[in-house]
Amino acid sequence: MGAIPDTILSELKAAAGPKGWTQDPAVLAPHLAEWRGRWTGATPIMLSPATTGEVARIVTICARERIPITPQGGNTGLVGGATPQGEILLSLRRMTLVRAVDPLNDAMTVEAGVTLLGAQEAAKAAGRLFPLSLGAEGLATVGGAISTNAGGVAVLRYGMMRDLVLGIEAVLADGRVFEGLRSLRKDNTGYDLKQLFIGAEGTLGVVTAATLKLFPRPAARAVALAGIGDVAAAIRLLAVAKDESGGAVTGFEILPRPVLDLVLKHMERVRDPLTAPHPWYALIEMSFGREDGARETMESALAAGVAAGLVRDAVVAQSETDAAAFWRLRELAPEAERADGPAIKHDVSVPVAAMPDLYARGCAAVAAIVPEGRVLCFGHAGDGNFHFNIAAPRENADAFWAKREAITEAVHEAAAALGGSISAEHGVGIMKKAEIARRKSAVEMDMMRAVKAALDPKGIMNPRVLLAGR
Amino acid sequence: MGAIPDTILSELKAAAGPKGWTQDPAVLAPHLAEWRGRWTGATPIMLSPATTGEVARIVTICARERIPITPQGGNTGLVGGATPQGEILLSLRRMTLVRAVDPLNDAMTVEAGVTLLGAQEAAKAAGRLFPLSLGAEGLATVGGAISTNAGGVAVLRYGMMRDLVLGIEAVLADGRVFEGLRSLRKDNTGYDLKQLFIGAEGTLGVVTAATLKLFPRPAARAVALAGIGDVAAAIRLLAVAKDESGGAVTGFEILPRPVLDLVLKHMERVRDPLTAPHPWYALIEMSFGREDGARETMESALAAGVAAGLVRDAVVAQSETDAAAFWRLRELAPEAERADGPAIKHDVSVPVAAMPDLYARGCAAVAAIVPEGRVLCFGHAGDGNFHFNIAAPRENADAFWAKREAITEAVHEAAAALGGSISAEHGVGIMKKAEIARRKSAVEMDMMRAVKAALDPKGIMNPRVLLAGR
Repeated sequence: MGAIPDTILSELKAAAGPKGWTQDPAVLAPHLAEWRGRWTGATPIMLSPATTGEVARIVTICARERIPITPQGGNTGLVGGATPQGEILLSLRRMTLVRAVDPLNDAMTVEAGVTLLGAQEAAKAAGRLFPLSLGAEGLATVGGAISTNAGGVAVLRYGMMRDLVLGIEAVLADGRVFEGLRSLRKDNTGYDLKQLFIGAEGTLGVVTAATLKLFPRPAARAVALAGIGDVAAAIRLLAVAKDESGGAVTGFEILPRPVLDLVLKHMERVRDPLTAPHPWYALIEMSFGREDGARETMESALAAGVAAGLVRDAVVAQSETDAAAFWRLRELAPEAERADGPAIKHDVSVPVAAMPDLYARGCAAVAAIVPEGRVLCFGHAGDGNFHFNIAAPRENADAFWAKREAITEAVHEAAAALGGSISAEHGVGIMKKAEIARRKSAVEMDMMRAVKAALDPKGIMNPRVLLAGR
Repeated sequence: MGAIPDTILSELKAAAGPKGWTQDPAVLAPHLAEWRGRWTGATPIMLSPATTGEVARIVTICARERIPITPQGGNTGLVGGATPQGEILLSLRRMTLVRAVDPLNDAMTVEAGVTLLGAQEAAKAAGRLFPLSLGAEGLATVGGAISTNAGGVAVLRYGMMRDLVLGIEAVLADGRVFEGLRSLRKDNTGYDLKQLFIGAEGTLGVVTAATLKLFPRPAARAVALAGIGDVAAAIRLLAVAKDESGGAVTGFEILPRPVLDLVLKHMERVRDPLTAPHPWYALIEMSFGREDGARETMESALAAGVAAGLVRDAVVAQSETDAAAFWRLRELAPEAERADGPAIKHDVSVPVAAMPDLYARGCAAVAAIVPEGRVLCFGHAGDGNFHFNIAAPRENADAFWAKREAITEAVHEAAAALGGSISAEHGVGIMKKAEIARRKSAVEMDMMRAVKAALDPKGIMNPRVLLAGR
């Protein structure tokens, strides 16, 4: 695209207000850098409107002038979806109002720039739980989490962001406002239009606010760390834990000993609570409405796991301090891997029951390409989601990196062959758009393009993202 | 539309196979009659394909010839969405395979013609729960429940049909097959296309199969009937019950004394388990993963309700027989109302906290038009959903019926003024399409028409339904 004329820039600045724009490279820099340094962007201007009306005025101008827009929330994405490459950068970070919290209706309405942590805290202040939780929650915004259908560690019980959205307000590609901020549990009056914006990565409009579901805060939780033999044992133990607790399992994360070793090696204030090493570990969390019986339920589930030959050893947290320490072992896994050295990372999912197969096939495929690569998986076993990472070897790393594409293809193919997904929670962005165009059926790609053309006929909304070849 | 040429009819018959079509008026009759007799239809032929391939061949022919199609499942809808008026009737009832049940993945794949009861039973046989439950579940099909995003009595805990669908297989309006039968908990690889078919009332394609979520079967449930003073007390009691049980409430239904009186008068094997009458009743169900403590949790919630001045009297079911008897009082309410005489019925929802307001405003508005009308509400209070019915008076009924439209307008306006919906769970069909075109914003109607045009450009899929003016 050509340079934006000064008159139009002035018009955009006026629409955003005096505090709502910058062209200062120093201010822009962090918004143009993907946080791991994988993509670096460029933009003529960052607009940071503070109200939905301002967003609408900006998009109206852009639609008239056919100026492409890249929306951005907390800039914590992992697939390059929020890094402009010449588009106008539309930051939602100044839209930070908590418009309403309604505990009696278990709902709250917040603007797109509220962080996930901010949303959790607003809910907590009203005695309620907003359950979406992930590593970047202090920076990641509600608008970004909706646009990427974020996941995290509570999906097993509470679902993805899609499951937590009751209503959406969004500015469409023509600048009109979709006023869908309903807080109804039931509304069957036509197509559920809000679904279109969830996981659309900003390609169909700009989410400006959302009404989110809240939940009662559990009265008690029980957390345990179990040493197990393999992934198959983990999946069977998950089923046992669900059955024994009648569905109280709210978290079920797994990691292998080599990943735990990295956490113990590189991180501080961590220790292995079990007395001997085990090939794999399952971190199990159950949540309960009543204090009494919580730990006993966990213990009986673990006992059933031992009886079934699934659990080698296990320890139940005796305090919230213990529980937090157990969770830290899993939560620090990505950071410990980074501290240990670079890796090729994948975010794949399969049906839960196929996780052992995915692990076996993925390891075999990787070993065939790079016998020296170390598979360092961890993941949300309750959701069938592995973060399937392969660490570069200490020596001859160049040969390893030269095979990067073949490795990724092998891991993705292992997932796809099991009916899985090559992007469980991180999205497509620019990173995977060529691959989804190749892997999805012609019917699905046609449907996606038809929806895109219907809602963004001029193709100005995040045009390089998600759908290739426009 | 004109008559379908015989050559095309022959082609359609061949596509459906020898057992897959009928033009016999006697066989057609029940498929053309809405079950309450409100709409009567007409069709040149009913096609009943047994496989997805047959459905695809039929729709391909119809697309080529621009022949409109009305899909039909169990024909239990309430808004005329499945009654053809000259369209080809495409019945999915012969597609009854349970293709797979995978308890380890908490998922099962069933064809569109499987009844909800059949789906529940298939899940139960595998030790799992498929929770969608509603009055017509013995006839209503999975395909119909998806196309209408059905609700029912378990929405509070498990959600609407939309929340229970992991994957969909559908035949598009051009005859191609959308193969979206994934059973993944997480898949962020582009627009979530399956959402388009849920609640679309057959206007975007024909759902042929679905992969559905399953759940652990609760180990125990506690059921209570509480006598309360008014709707406001019910909503506050709901919040108390949620808090006291940590989210174990799986059902919260309310009905007023006049409705209970009709049940006691017209139905068999029913009795009032409380010793004195109360203005309103709340039927509360909690589900638990453990047997012990279930009844105690319900009792402590009711005690908290008494302490807060919300509960006048209450009885906790001492057995499954008791529990079933309490549930019957609520489940028989529609039948008891029908037995008592005709009524004008509404299916409205508001944010849960606004239910007392809805009841007050609705009653006032109705009284202003027909002081002789008797408001007989009951509903899913946990979802903010009232079935807001007004029974015709015994005398001067003609004057009452003459005001039918004004009454409906008043009830719907009361819901809309509170941010509510005029169709909480029954859908739009042909019954409410003019009204939603009037009540929804121009932006929303434009978006819906854009989606329809994108996926069904020839307008052959259930063309009289949902979207007016085509």
